[in-house]
Amino acid sequence: MARIAPVNAKGTRDFLPRDLVQRNRIFGLMRDTFERYGYEPLETPSVENTSVLEGKYGEEGDRLLFRILKRGASLESAAHDLANDGTDTSASALSRHLSDEALRYDLTVPFARVVAAHQNDIALPFRRYQMQPVWRADRPQRGRYREFYQCDVDCVGSRSMLLDAEMAAIHHEVFSRLGFTTFVTRINHRGVLDALMQSCDVPPEQRVPALTAIDKLDKIVAEGVREELDKLGLAPSSVQRLMEAITIAGEPREVLAALQDRLGTTPSGAEGLRELGEVFTYLDEMGVPAERYTFDMSLVRALSYYTGTIYETVLTNSRLGSLGGGGRYDRLIGQFTGRDLPCVGISFGIERIFDALREQGLLADEATTATQALVTLFASETVAASLAVARSLRAAGLRAEVYVEPRDLKPQLAFANRKGIPLAAILGPDEQARGEVILRDLRTHDQRTVPQAEAAEQALAMLGER
Amino acid sequence: MARIAPVNAKGTRDFLPRDLVQRNRIFGLMRDTFERYGYEPLETPSVENTSVLEGKYGEEGDRLLFRILKRGASLESAAHDLANDGTDTSASALSRHLSDEALRYDLTVPFARVVAAHQNDIALPFRRYQMQPVWRADRPQRGRYREFYQCDVDCVGSRSMLLDAEMAAIHHEVFSRLGFTTFVTRINHRGVLDALMQSCDVPPEQRVPALTAIDKLDKIVAEGVREELDKLGLAPSSVQRLMEAITIAGEPREVLAALQDRLGTTPSGAEGLRELGEVFTYLDEMGVPAERYTFDMSLVRALSYYTGTIYETVLTNSRLGSLGGGGRYDRLIGQFTGRDLPCVGISFGIERIFDALREQGLLADEATTATQALVTLFASETVAASLAVARSLRAAGLRAEVYVEPRDLKPQLAFANRKGIPLAAILGPDEQARGEVILRDLRTHDQRTVPQAEAAEQALAMLGER
Repeated sequence: MARIAPVNAKGTRDFLPRDLVQRNRIFGLMRDTFERYGYEPLETPSVENTSVLEGKYGEEGDRLLFRILKRGASLESAAHDLANDGTDTSASALSRHLSDEALRYDLTVPFARVVAAHQNDIALPFRRYQMQPVWRADRPQRGRYREFYQCDVDCVGSRSMLLDAEMAAIHHEVFSRLGFTTFVTRINHRGVLDALMQSCDVPPEQRVPALTAIDKLDKIVAEGVREELDKLGLAPSSVQRLMEAITIAGEPREVLAALQDRLGTTPSGAEGLRELGEVFTYLDEMGVPAERYTFDMSLVRALSYYTGTIYETVLTNSRLGSLGGGGRYDRLIGQFTGRDLPCVGISFGIERIFDALREQGLLADEATTATQALVTLFASETVAASLAVARSLRAAGLRAEVYVEPRDLKPQLAFANRKGIPLAAILGPDEQARGEVILRDLRTHDQRTVPQAEAAEQALAMLGER
Repeated sequence: MARIAPVNAKGTRDFLPRDLVQRNRIFGLMRDTFERYGYEPLETPSVENTSVLEGKYGEEGDRLLFRILKRGASLESAAHDLANDGTDTSASALSRHLSDEALRYDLTVPFARVVAAHQNDIALPFRRYQMQPVWRADRPQRGRYREFYQCDVDCVGSRSMLLDAEMAAIHHEVFSRLGFTTFVTRINHRGVLDALMQSCDVPPEQRVPALTAIDKLDKIVAEGVREELDKLGLAPSSVQRLMEAITIAGEPREVLAALQDRLGTTPSGAEGLRELGEVFTYLDEMGVPAERYTFDMSLVRALSYYTGTIYETVLTNSRLGSLGGGGRYDRLIGQFTGRDLPCVGISFGIERIFDALREQGLLADEATTATQALVTLFASETVAASLAVARSLRAAGLRAEVYVEPRDLKPQLAFANRKGIPLAAILGPDEQARGEVILRDLRTHDQRTVPQAEAAEQALAMLGER
């Protein structure tokens, strides 16, 4: 028989049930948290027109798009053109020529497209979350895939700092519910960074490299940052003042007060500090503990994108880096509508979060199946009784699998153990004759013989569900 | 400002929150049912190697694949080849030349690939379900999309008829839980159809057209089928016997008994009738009511695919056609492993099911949002109290949105009404001073003033959740 190699595409993964039991639990917890804050689900198509995607992610992004090849007559016509002399045959020109659709590259651009397309249907402010795969033709490596999930939470249509605080509060609630105990959300503001550059007399052309150096504070510590700033040729007094500002330690409000004199005199500094003060107040009122967030002047994030507050959550006892972040960005929707709308959002780095859960021992290894009970089959005459017991377990909401055919008990229990099913409902001829069933806990080997009519109630108790 | 048209790709859909509230409820109900029967989730990548997909869906299928364009040097090299004389420039040849990956076309082939690739990890028999989008470049039309969800439930690794019955039982349970009251599952067997062809002396070369004619019984009724069979040039006595067999009416076991003498004498007929008898017995024992399934000799389904029992569920009061179906197929996995494994499965036609729910009045129109309560903001001094109330609602598991900024009450309630949020928690200065909150049911306009500490409990009661 001819055989086809059963190989998945490069950089992609099959998720088997044991993976999905964990993933679905964590996705469910995140969805539940977002919805408790009034954020609603949105789903966009995997395929977008290239006109929507191109130019949004830089040259690198355009190169990493998964493009859909044209079909039929339009493919033939595009290929015909290529045969002409003088056609640009670079990969970049070819790919534009041979495709007009591509796979989603992130969730933000499709979100902006939807807001623009459904302006009249959507009540603003619009709180939405989106958890869907995206595709990037990066070189696959450990922990980096070509198809992976992103998870974004955004609100469009309001400048209220309540929303900025809500973003940090949602990070706090998700990471707490996931069981992390060492996380902290770093908070900063682009206006405050602008004021810092101005007040320390960093010339405009040096501001991007200076901010890039400052952003490395958590990796290369103060001495490393000072060296990089020196190398930029900044005046010693500028470097000195920058270093003083970014290393101020203390509670968020203390840092805020310490910066007020230095930065509060410029309009962007005054506005940024005022907005951060509001955010800190709301965070208190939302019940986020003070030890869970910092005012961190060295947080910079994507320079060309964010326009106000910025956020990033890290674990203090891990080298895994950011588990998610975000901020306020006001210029995205305007690309589609011609009219800017204020936005603020955060993302969760799904794959990194799974790595972190594993590192911190927060993933339950033993849960390898969603199935809670195996109902055994003894002989064809007892199948009816086994099916009746299975039915009663299911009616009580339990996930119960019936073994596929009558067989010795041993291979049936071996099957349950291999899958990690915690409970077996065993029906032999004796139990059948007495209208009973043996419930065996396969983890502890405890077992009890109970009337079939009580099987569901007893099984729930043994599984700790009642 | 330059504007990009916010248009989604042809044949695709954006799902807004009001759509997803319905879709997620129904997807959740289906997942829950599958898991109660011990079926476990599986997810495969959207992108597959074309070697896995090509040749599995016929010429039409190959043509409708969404292919991923090669990138970088391999694209340049492929394009370079095209410039050579003598290259086949048909769309079919071009598309093979310019791509080696494509989007998933169905869920069955990836399932077979996973079973083959993970043979040592997966305990057989393996019950799995899969609900994921697939892509087909069909001409879009009403109710037909290029990106749409499929939902498959299959078991690989056993020939037990218990599984065949389980498939029909799962159809029964899902359609019942969705609220359908007029559905019936038609059941037949490929071996019985083979025996029918043989016993009625239909020559081998006429069997496919004869079965194709018989399959139309539910559309063109008996006279139409008889005409088509006559046109094939079959002997009048053959047509007479075929018509008698496919129009036998009665309970499944009565039809089975009536066919025993005619078809039970050939090996495939005897085996098919015995297997159907087992399935009917198990269906009784699984609690599926007799009026919910029929033994329907005119059910044929995909001829080249199924090898045993076949199923299809329809509504008796609708012209929408099949809401799902399936059967036993034994030759799929062997394409990847070189060794056949028995399989049986059913699918649910997700998009058709939504059409049917709408047609039968089973979709709740009013539920336009997942959010259960809007907490209003009166003035900056009362924000803290509003945030505290929101926190208590969320702690009780409620989905509560805080309005984004202090404003007159009227636009806040208009916002809640527009979104379909059922409850408002109103905090003005008077309530704030007395530590109270007004809970207003926005559907009935009932309202009660309660202490803030009791807000969650009272809100749950007003929403009917306690």
